[in-house]
Formats: sequence, structure tokens, C-alpha cells
Amino acid sequence: MELFNVLTVQQARSTLAQHLTKGNREEIVPLLNGLNRILSRDICAVEDVPGFDRSTMDGYAVRAKDTFGATESLPSYVNVTGEVLMGQEAVGTVAPGQAWSIPTGGMLPQGADAVVMVEYTEELDELTIGVTKPVAPGDNVVRRGEDVKAGTVVLQAGHRIRPQDLGLLAAVGVTKVPVNLPLRVGIISTGNELVDPSKEAELGKVRDINSYALYGQVLEAGGAPQLYGIVEDEFDSLKGTMEKALNDNDLVLVSGGSSVGARDVTAKVIETIGEPGVLFHGIAVKPGKPSIGAVVQGKPVFGLPGHPVSAMIVFDLLARPIIETAGLPLARKVFPLRAAINRNMHSATGRDDFIRVTLLRLEDGSIVAEPVLGKSGLISTMVKADGVAHLPLSKEGVEAGELVDVWLF
Amino acid sequence: MELFNVLTVQQARSTLAQHLTKGNREEIVPLLNGLNRILSRDICAVEDVPGFDRSTMDGYAVRAKDTFGATESLPSYVNVTGEVLMGQEAVGTVAPGQAWSIPTGGMLPQGADAVVMVEYTEELDELTIGVTKPVAPGDNVVRRGEDVKAGTVVLQAGHRIRPQDLGLLAAVGVTKVPVNLPLRVGIISTGNELVDPSKEAELGKVRDINSYALYGQVLEAGGAPQLYGIVEDEFDSLKGTMEKALNDNDLVLVSGGSSVGARDVTAKVIETIGEPGVLFHGIAVKPGKPSIGAVVQGKPVFGLPGHPVSAMIVFDLLARPIIETAGLPLARKVFPLRAAINRNMHSATGRDDFIRVTLLRLEDGSIVAEPVLGKSGLISTMVKADGVAHLPLSKEGVEAGELVDVWLF
Repeated sequence: MELFNVLTVQQARSTLAQHLTKGNREEIVPLLNGLNRILSRDICAVEDVPGFDRSTMDGYAVRAKDTFGATESLPSYVNVTGEVLMGQEAVGTVAPGQAWSIPTGGMLPQGADAVVMVEYTEELDELTIGVTKPVAPGDNVVRRGEDVKAGTVVLQAGHRIRPQDLGLLAAVGVTKVPVNLPLRVGIISTGNELVDPSKEAELGKVRDINSYALYGQVLEAGGAPQLYGIVEDEFDSLKGTMEKALNDNDLVLVSGGSSVGARDVTAKVIETIGEPGVLFHGIAVKPGKPSIGAVVQGKPVFGLPGHPVSAMIVFDLLARPIIETAGLPLARKVFPLRAAINRNMHSATGRDDFIRVTLLRLEDGSIVAEPVLGKSGLISTMVKADGVAHLPLSKEGVEAGELVDVWLF
Repeated sequence: MELFNVLTVQQARSTLAQHLTKGNREEIVPLLNGLNRILSRDICAVEDVPGFDRSTMDGYAVRAKDTFGATESLPSYVNVTGEVLMGQEAVGTVAPGQAWSIPTGGMLPQGADAVVMVEYTEELDELTIGVTKPVAPGDNVVRRGEDVKAGTVVLQAGHRIRPQDLGLLAAVGVTKVPVNLPLRVGIISTGNELVDPSKEAELGKVRDINSYALYGQVLEAGGAPQLYGIVEDEFDSLKGTMEKALNDNDLVLVSGGSSVGARDVTAKVIETIGEPGVLFHGIAVKPGKPSIGAVVQGKPVFGLPGHPVSAMIVFDLLARPIIETAGLPLARKVFPLRAAINRNMHSATGRDDFIRVTLLRLEDGSIVAEPVLGKSGLISTMVKADGVAHLPLSKEGVEAGELVDVWLF
């Protein structure tokens, strides 16, 4: 195997980053179309949310001082001099010894600094209530700006919009959202043995798996995938298709070419298409070692292994981060699940190992990871698995019972 | 607070399930449109994958017996009598003492039962190689049907299609996929204090958050959301809108009405629209207690709290499972992340508590959950959080350092 420049995953990522021309393109979408899109700019609140002090309970807006010392046997009596109506400005003032009735979400009138829950009041007559439990200033009140303060950045560029973020954007009145355009990703499968899934697989042939698995991965990462079909392991055909794909897209994935000769074709085609060309040929990861990373015309091109498991894992390690952020740093943290692996697993130091695992929940709540054995050519092992466990390159393996990071599918 | 029938989350789920008419409707979509859709039927493989024994290495197809005892100093010599071409049927037989050259992915010829990697051979002359390391039968070979056996269920009804599942479906030649139609979900916000996000929020008013957060949650769950805007807390308006929403959709979400009077309006409207009507009014969950679960015309209707955090959490507990599966049991396991909570948290027994948390990774790889404090009316607390920690109803709380389940956003 000719691997002239084997890099670790970290080295591969930073090598790629050095050669990418970061030109994330932006579009403005209506708020309702924003889910899962990546913000292309910081979003700043221009006003306080809420814009006034609000009650969080049904009850009476009071001056807290008027309730000090109140008990069930010795209530504090206050005069009900007004009523806050839902959705309306509270015009007027609560003077000492006074209270206004107020619904949940109602605007606190001037003078009042707390709300007594209706459960802690008794009606003496139509104009007087007894408060049976004291409140402190601010009790049962959301203060103006307590949710969002005017002038603050509420969501950062690079953030992926979740349902609650749609809610927050609505709250601050942002109904058009600046997001990255999805990265266009061209997908090519190579291999003389491949046929389209709609075709019969005659003896010697297998159906193209990688185009479809990668298509799903690109979509999941927020990209816009386009399939270029199956190309023979032959220089001119691959060059023609790759030039077309590069022309139409921001990133190109070529998978297949598992045999030595075929791998060389992919690398040679990349080298003739443009500068800087192949940056590395081989990464210190298992499965997925015989991968090619390249940049041509400022666009990343990946030569992924033909084995579906390897292709998917290398995609996640190298291509996914670029597609997810369209060049921006990701503003959101991601966390693996921690699970106890249930058998000893060997791993070479200096190499990142990814082991397909199924997960199992024990009575005590802890989670066990059971390796899915099987060759990296078997897509069924990825289907059976719940995720992949990562044995980092600093480790020589793990012992049964040891906690490992599991990245869920 | 009038809560005439408070159920636990489990009781609420099973009460709802009893009244739902499970009519998941199906559609057939092209494979490339299948990502994240829920299979409406089991998918069965009609043929073996691969359809023949395949080499996983570049090398020579041999009879393993011919290599027994081979060493570097004393190689086993075999005659090269054929060549397997990629993607073509291997016609002929490897007789004892013979070998065929074979590429990775090539079809194993009859007679051969293993592949010797090219690295463990030496060329003696054009027609003879020496094997320097023995192979066992099956070495470096994927057997016919080893990935998928004909006649087996490869993916179950109720399974959500992931990228690798697209790959598997391609492998077995399934290019049209039977999936559940997305559940149509009508979303209504009620409250005299609400204004559309595109409008100014005058004093006393706040912008509608819940419609947008719920819209995102419905999409994420695989449903087809439709907004019905903001309705006043008034019987006739709500009845008219709810009838329209019920007519157009499979499920209806009404949020808001946080004040006592407003809550009653929602329940009364549901009661007049159809049978069986309100099934529970109040669930033993915090936040989210004042929630209504109902079934009308066989369709679920939820009255969610007005506080955005409560509405989102109750949606996830009760509505999401129905939308995700369109009535089918979910065929895929889901796992929480386990994290150590970093402070004592009180929780009443008999109630499920959900605490917004941010997560933090420690040097040793373990994950710490830090509660995000703040009222359930503040959407910013959901934005700040990475997920919610679950304190189950059997527990009276957790102590700092204890491991809890965290459901990531």
C-alpha cells in the first residue's frame, strides 16, 4: 500500500483548514425555515424581553412591604383599587396599602414590586383582601429584560438553530434569519464492480451503497448533496466527472477505488485538475486509513475508501465539520455519550480507532457498549450499531468495563 | 388551581394510547427522499448481499490447504492460472496448486476458499508465485450473504431511516421506500397578551414564542406543522380555530392560557368539540403541571402551558412520541447521556422533574451537568441549556456528584 503521507485526524483537519478559502455564502430565510440552519451572523436583541415587569402568577400586585409579617391568623389587609387586564398596559399606580388584581403574564403596575398568589389571599369584602403570607420584592415577577437584555448577542454566528432558538428569535422580533447557504456537495462512486441500486447485481457486481449513505450524511450535516453516479476506475472518465462535479459544487466526495490501482487513479486525477492537489494520502484512523484529502480551486476533495463503514467514518471525521459550518467555527458544543465497553479492545497508539457498538441500558442506569464485529465492507454492521466508540490515538486499547466516548448515530 | 385529574407521565401516555385510533397513513418515496422518515413496513431482503464470495484484499485467490505451513524461508509455490477482473464473473476453477490474481472486491473463483494478500507473496516467474504466510479458509473473503441474507428483515417498521440505512436499502435494491406520512400538526397560541413576532410588542404585550418553538419541535419529530396564529382567550374564537385545526390536521397543540380562566376556556372548548374530550388536566411533571391531554374525533389534542419551557418539555414527553412514530412503536432505542450533576437538587416524589442543564467536559473525559436556573417563562434558559436532566418520579432529588440522565437538545 503506497501511503506517502499519513497524517493523524487532527493533522489532516488543520492541513485542510490551511488551504480552504473561507467564503461562506449567506442567505436570508423566513424564521419558520430556519430550523437546523447555521447562523451566518451574530443575532443581537434590540429591546428587552419582556419589555415590562410581568406577573408569573394569578393574584394581586402589591408593595411587598405591605405584606411583611402577614400570617393566616393575622393577615395584612390591603385595598383592591385596580385590575390589570391581560395584554394591556397597566395605567395607574399601586399606592401603599393598595393592591391590583393581576393575571399570570399581566403587566405589573407602577408602585407594585411583587405579586401575592391568589392562594395566599382571602376576600374580606369587594374592595379589601387579606394577605396570609408575606412576599419579598420581586416575588412572582419576571423583571423587564430578565429573559433577554437589549443590546446583547442572543445567538452567535455558527450556531445551529434549534426549536428553542426559533422561539427566542420570535421573542426578539427577528422574523428573517441570516444563515449560511448549504454547502453544495458532489458525490461520485467509482468501481467497475458497481451497479445502480435499481439494477440487478449480476455475478461479480454489487450495488452502489456509498452514494446513498453519503447522500444521507451530507443532508444530515446541512449540505446540499448531488449524485454524479458510478464512474469506472479509469483516468479519463473520472477526470471528466470530477471536473463537472467540482464546477457545480463547493466540495466533492469520491468513494471507492479500494484496490491499489483504483486508488492511484483518484489521486492522479486530483493532481491533474488543480493546485495544491493531494494534501495527504492516508490517515491514521481505523477503519479508513486509505483516504485522500485534497484541495483544488479552493474546494475540498475527499477520496474516501470503498468500504462503506470506512467511507462513512472518514466522512464524519473530515468532511462533516466543513459542511456543517460552511467554514465557520461551530458555536455549539457537542458531547459524546459515555459508556462502559464490555470487552477488551486492542488499538495501536498513534491511530484513532472507531468501533461500531450497540448500546444496552443496565438496571442501575449505566450504559454498556457492545462492539459489533464484522468487516468494514459490511454496511449491515453500521445498521446494527447505535454509534461508534472512539479509542483515541493516545491509547493502546481499552479494558472491559472502561468508559469510552460513544458518538451516537 | 383546578386540576381534576393529575396523572403521571406514564399514565398520561397510556391513557392517550387507549383512545387513539392508530391509522398511520403510508406513502412511497424515492430512496433519496427517505432520510429521517419512519418505515411503515418491514423491509425484507430478497437476495444475498453480496451475491457471491468477494475478496477484501488485493492478492491471490487460492485453496487455503495449498498454503499450510508456508513461511518466508520456505514458501508454498502455486501456479497462477487466471485473473479475476473487477466487476466480472470469475469463470473457471482454481484447481489444487493453482492461484488466480484478484483485486479487492473481486469475485472469488470456484475452488478457491481464501485470498493471500499480495504482501505475503513473491513472484518467482510469470506463472508462479511463492506464498510466504499461510491462510485459513475464509481469510480475506466476504462470504455470499455475509452482509445480508436473503429472506431476512433488514429494517423494521417504525425504524427511522439514517444515512447507513439508505446505504443498506440501496444494497438490497430497494429504491422506493414505504414510509409513514408525516403527521399533520396544527399549532394554536392563545393569549390576549400575545402579538405576532413581526409586530411591535407594546406595553403589556409580548411576542408569541410558543408557536415558533413548537413548530421547530414538530419538524424535528418528523411532523408537518401548520400555524393557526394567535387566538384570544375567549370561547368562541378558540372553538372556531380549534375546529378548523382539527379538521385539517391529525393532532392539535394549543399553548398558552396560563391564567386560571384561560386554562378553563381551552378545556371547555375541547369538551364541546367531541368525545371522549379531556382525558387529564394536569400531569405530575415539573415544569408543565397544568397541561391538558385530550382526544377528539380520534385525534390527540394537547393544551400546553403558556410558559415556553413548560410547553416544550410537555411537548417532548407527550406529543413527540406520537408524531415520531405516527402511531407505530418506535423500533429504535434512544439513550440519554449520563452526567454528574454538580449541585444538590430537590424533587418531590411522585413527580418527574426536568432540569435545564449546560454540560461541561472534564479532563478525565467525564461530563458534568450544571443546572441553568431561571423561571420556566424564560425561553433564554432553554437556549442557554444543552439539554434537560431527568429526576425520575421515584426519587426525592439528587445529590451533587450523582449521575443523572440528560436528554440532549
